[in-house]
This record gives sequence, structure tokens and C-alpha cells, in this order.
Amino acid sequence: MSENSFVRKIPGGVCAAEGVRAAAVTAGIKESGRPDMMLLVFDPPAQAAGVFTQNLVVAAPVLLCRERVGKGPLRAVLVNSGNANACTGAEGMANAQHLCAAVAGRLGCTEAEVVMSSTGLIGAQLPAGIMEAALGDLVNALAPDQGAAAAEAIMTTDTRPKAYAVEVKLPGGTVRLGGMSKGAGMIAPNMATMLAYITSDAEISSLPLQEMLREACDQTFNCITIDGDTSTNDTVIMAATGASGVTVDSPEARERFAAALREVCLELALAIVRDGEGVTKVVRVKAGGAASVEEARLAARAVSESLLVKTALHGELPNWGRIFAAAGRSGAQIAPEKMVLRIGEVEVLREGTPVPGWEEKLAGVMKQPEYEIALDLGVGEAEAVFWTTDLSYDYVRINAEYRT
Amino acid sequence: MSENSFVRKIPGGVCAAEGVRAAAVTAGIKESGRPDMMLLVFDPPAQAAGVFTQNLVVAAPVLLCRERVGKGPLRAVLVNSGNANACTGAEGMANAQHLCAAVAGRLGCTEAEVVMSSTGLIGAQLPAGIMEAALGDLVNALAPDQGAAAAEAIMTTDTRPKAYAVEVKLPGGTVRLGGMSKGAGMIAPNMATMLAYITSDAEISSLPLQEMLREACDQTFNCITIDGDTSTNDTVIMAATGASGVTVDSPEARERFAAALREVCLELALAIVRDGEGVTKVVRVKAGGAASVEEARLAARAVSESLLVKTALHGELPNWGRIFAAAGRSGAQIAPEKMVLRIGEVEVLREGTPVPGWEEKLAGVMKQPEYEIALDLGVGEAEAVFWTTDLSYDYVRINAEYRT
Repeated sequence: MSENSFVRKIPGGVCAAEGVRAAAVTAGIKESGRPDMMLLVFDPPAQAAGVFTQNLVVAAPVLLCRERVGKGPLRAVLVNSGNANACTGAEGMANAQHLCAAVAGRLGCTEAEVVMSSTGLIGAQLPAGIMEAALGDLVNALAPDQGAAAAEAIMTTDTRPKAYAVEVKLPGGTVRLGGMSKGAGMIAPNMATMLAYITSDAEISSLPLQEMLREACDQTFNCITIDGDTSTNDTVIMAATGASGVTVDSPEARERFAAALREVCLELALAIVRDGEGVTKVVRVKAGGAASVEEARLAARAVSESLLVKTALHGELPNWGRIFAAAGRSGAQIAPEKMVLRIGEVEVLREGTPVPGWEEKLAGVMKQPEYEIALDLGVGEAEAVFWTTDLSYDYVRINAEYRT
Repeated sequence: MSENSFVRKIPGGVCAAEGVRAAAVTAGIKESGRPDMMLLVFDPPAQAAGVFTQNLVVAAPVLLCRERVGKGPLRAVLVNSGNANACTGAEGMANAQHLCAAVAGRLGCTEAEVVMSSTGLIGAQLPAGIMEAALGDLVNALAPDQGAAAAEAIMTTDTRPKAYAVEVKLPGGTVRLGGMSKGAGMIAPNMATMLAYITSDAEISSLPLQEMLREACDQTFNCITIDGDTSTNDTVIMAATGASGVTVDSPEARERFAAALREVCLELALAIVRDGEGVTKVVRVKAGGAASVEEARLAARAVSESLLVKTALHGELPNWGRIFAAAGRSGAQIAPEKMVLRIGEVEVLREGTPVPGWEEKLAGVMKQPEYEIALDLGVGEAEAVFWTTDLSYDYVRINAEYRT
């Protein structure tokens, strides 16, 4: 259910928008023998925008994306799983360029109209030969009903594919936004990448698209935390084909389109959180009463990333002191004697001290798989929301036992 | 073995310095029935310095310490374990003041010459009645050979007491520095506090003592990380009685005294790390080749706090990509194509790419209980060192299962 009356969830995932075809194949990059290559193709070539990892160690395909996305029309996105093409030097970059050129050759477009993403093992060169050999099958399999197959082919440690699509009523007509993501926390032998691809058949140019995508990412993908690590390959690419003929031109159209984009990004981000390694709890952390949005984010993030908080969520322990103290060291201004803490519907602290009877009331709340922690810092009016997970035995097991 | 020729390790812990007496009793604050109150008394009253938590949620006894430490002579430090006197409002502050006054009454000094620390449960009022009732026994038990008993009485989830003492040859004669600490990571129902008390019989005044203590803490207690949380009660207090009659006056004397103080702080800090919850590995993380010491610290800290790195240390996995990527997102400038990574004696990366054969060479290194990870960021000359631990199943168990 969308919270926006003009937005309705629809099936189809990343192919829900007109002008988008996808295909997936098994090239043999993954030892598991599961699908490991995916191609998205846009007709007509799309207006594009991208948001990429802020890690200074950047994988070759991300460097390529940064050069190309938003600089001109985008015809195709190639994605492989099983190998991240990170820490691979000049050879890694040459492989990425070569594969994009090979896709361009088969599609009859320029190299600059094709980008790629990679996710998986770090520090190993792409098996470019088997990948190139798979391109023929990939192009032949392109179809507008392959959204589910595409979402599966980009998975690494994900336990399930992640897709979400909506249609949005704009003043000029209805457009569609479709998306898919993969994530599942960071994983061996390095860390997993967060990837997301969002498409639309709206007519909108690259510049406003970039602004909207950046804003949507800041409130969704950048507000989720499983283990606080960011990868060398994190990528969100948005492509608008314009195939609907409906233009995002008026302020109202822009507002609606941006709201729908936020919703798609949020659902794709939450799907990653819910599928996080060893995750049994998903908790919305709202920090309000802050001096600024930046400070609200600091506090929400510190609570979300605290190992003590995360183990307490796992143990269903009402250890509010851990939450309180995480906010206290976050760098945000707080007024301890004015702070209010609510877990679910239960007020635990008021004016910085425990509310009598909180413990009994709280018993049921923390047993739920999803709930909210709301903290008022007692300083101002700004607020921010993060989503976090528990830290479980399984998280340690998955990350400590994975062998290369 | 000290790395400084003028420093020699000696027994005695916090009482190793002349003019320091200690006592410990069981007042009944802890349910376990273990010792839970400790008193340190200085004759003559000591010159004092303190470094306290930077958490904005600050426990009552820390507020009291900040008011008093370094503002005049210090006669006594009272410490209780089992209750942190944090998030306890005006009543908590009144209890701390009252107990300090009661100690002052028994010792015949002013209230301002007594401070206290508390560690344990957050959000519950101190059982001030039973604590005050225990003060008579505490004062009667004061003796210069009670360093070990004192170190035991400040423990919470620590599995062993932590003490270290040295004598230092200064140009004017020999002085002693003694210390004790407690920590063991953060723990339920809130988080554990890091406490340390360091004494000396050197003659030195409060101002240079404060400078040296701040500097020593920045390089030791502030460079250890078990889970990245800082508590509401973290406290390091240093007291110099002057009872040796040896003055720390010349530049050489200051330099030697500061080196000895760093050594005592480092050993007390490492004792906390080694006793961290569920810790099986202690790893020295050196970030070199940084543009500045601040950036070196950012990188060393990011590597030290990364859950992916910490689970890899636990699993003895040579997942260098996790280390590399943590440095990349740390905020420090790095030159990926120049980065060098060494684990133990094995060079794993050079110029940002794997060194052939690293994996076989590394097999034995990560099985060791203590070793070094050295990262060169390839940008400048500055370096910084952190100490970290692995993240184990037991960490999650201890922190997720503790019930209030």
C-alpha cells in the first residue's frame, strides 16, 4: 500500500516501465552455477542519472559509470555477479571497457551508451572471455517480461530477489517506475555491493532526474545500515525511456514523480535490510528534536550502528541505556534532561529518566519483527530516520566462516 | 619489558607509588556478592588530572569529577561497581555529593578533595544507605598493600583485575607510577565503563600533569576499540602525591615521566582490550602514509571498527578487501594505486593490487592471538595506531543474552 494516493504498486519489477527489456544468463562466473549476467536495454535510449559509492577505493565499473551516466543517452546496463572487478588495476578497467564495447557492438549503439556494474569477489580479474561469450545469448534473450530473471541474476548472498514497481498518475497521464536491488549486507571475501536499477517510461531529462535520484537516495539507500560498511561498488542507476510520452514538467508532476521515486527507493532499500545477513529484526530509528537535519542524522545513525543497540535488538532486551548513550556520543547536540525515548508505542524515558512501569509495557514490543525507536533529543525541531537491523549470531557466522 | 631503558616494571599496582593507600569492601551493591566499593587515599593530598567521557549523556559522578579534579588537591577517590549512577537526575547528583562528603568527614578533609566514580547498571539510583554504611570498614581497611584488592573491586564484566606499575629513573631520583583499570567492552543492561586510576609519588603540579595525561590517553585509551561505544561514565584520573620528594622539573625529567605514563596507560588499555567481551584476537592496526595524523587516525579507526574486518579476524580469514575498503570509506585521503597492506610480516597488497603468493604466506599469521595490520595510504608521512579485537559469537551472546 502506497502512502501516496496517486501511486499504485504494480508487478513487473525493473521491466514495469515501457521501453525496458531485460535478460539474464548463466555465464559461469559464480561457482554455484546460478545466473550471473544480466542486461537491461532501453528503447529509446534513456535519460540517465546515477549515485555511486563514496568509498575512495572504487571498482573499475563504477569509474566507468561515473564517466558515462548522465553525460548522454543510455542504451544498456550490463551487470555481472560473482566478481566485483575491484582492486584490479588497469586490466580491470580494460575488461570493463571491452565488455561495454562488445555490448554496444551487438546493440548497434556507441560504447558511451553502455555501462556495467560488477558485484562479488574483490581482487580477482573478471573472466572476460566467458563473459563475452555469453553476450550473444544475453542479447537474444532480451524481453520485456524478464524483470524477475534480471533481479535474480544480480544476487550474491541475497536470499531472495528484490523488485518493486509502481504506476504514478501525473497531470499529463500515467507513468511507471520499476526497480530492482541487491545487497544483503557486506560479505566475503570482501563486502557485498548494494546495487539498484530504477527505470521509468516518463519523459524527463537527465538533470532533474539526477537531482531527484540524489535526494531519494539520501533518504532511503543512505539511511539503511546493516553493518555500517560501504562497498567499492555501490551503485544506483536510474534510466527514463520517455516511452510513455508523458512529460514530468509541471511542479506538481515533479513532486509526484519524486514521491514515487522515493517510494520505489525505500522499498528496494528495505528489501535489502530485511534480507540482511542473519537479520531477524528491522527497526526504524527516528531521531527528532534535533538542532538540524544533519545532527538528527548523526544521532539516528549512531543508534543504528551501535553494536550494543544491535545486539540488544537481537536479544529483545529493553536496554534503553545503550540507545541513550549512542545518541550521546553521536556528535549531535542533545539536552539529556529533556530527552524522550519511545520504543513502539511505549514511552520509556521522559526528561531523561525512566518512566515508571516502562519495563512491563515494553515486553511485547521488542518481540515484534519490525518496530520503531523514536528519540527526541530535546534541542530543536529537525528529524531524520534510519533503518537498522539486529546483530545476530548468524551475522558473525556468515562473515567469519565464509572461505574464499 | 619496557621499551624505555629508564623504566622498569614493578609490582604493587595502583599502590606502587608512595603515599597511596587503598581498601576494598563488599557493600552489597552487586547481586553477585563480590567486592563493590573501593577507596584510594593520598598522603599528602595529591596533584590531580582527569580525562572524562565525551559522551553528552554524562553520569553524575563524572560531572562531580569535572568540577573538582585539577582544581585543588585531591585526598581520595571512592569507586563503586554494580551501579553507574547515570540517567539518575538530581537525586543521583545528590547521592554522589553526599557520599563524597561522608568520605571527607571520615578522612578529615574538605568535600572538594574527594571525588567518586560509579560503574554498572544505568538508570537506577545508588543504594546510598548501604554504601554509606560501608564507609567505616573501607576507611579502617586502608593500607598500602591493597592494590590488588582495589583492582578487583572496580570490576564489572571484567574476567580479571588489571594493574600495572613501573619505576622511572629521573635525573633527580627514582619515582613510581602505579595504575589499575577496568573495562571489558560495553555491557548490559547498558554499557560498561572504562575506568582507570593512575598514581605517582613524583612531585609535579596539576597543569603539566593534565597535559601529559591528555596526551597519553589520546595515544592509548582513545586508540582502543572493542565495539566503538563510549560510556556515560568513562574516567581516567591521575594523582601525584609528591611523596618521593623527586620533582619532575627538567625537560628530560618531563620526557621520561611522560614516556612512563604512556607506557602505564598503554598496558592498562591493552589489558582492557585483551579482556574484551568474547575477544580471541588483539590486533594492532597501523595506518601510515597519511596526509595528517588526524587522517591516519580516521583510517586506523575505520579499519578497527569495521564489523567485516572484525568478523574476518575472528574467522582468521585473509579478506584484505574488507581492510582496504574500510580505509577507503574512512574519510582519510588515500591513493588506491599506491596503497600497501601488510598483515604480520606478509605483504599482501602493493600498489593497490594483490602480491602474488600472499595467500599461502598469510596462513599462519592470522592464527596468532596478537599481530599487526599495517596499511600505507600512499599519500603522506603521518601515521597512527589503534588496537582492535575480533568480533566473536561470544560478543553477540554476552550482549544479546544479558537480562536485567
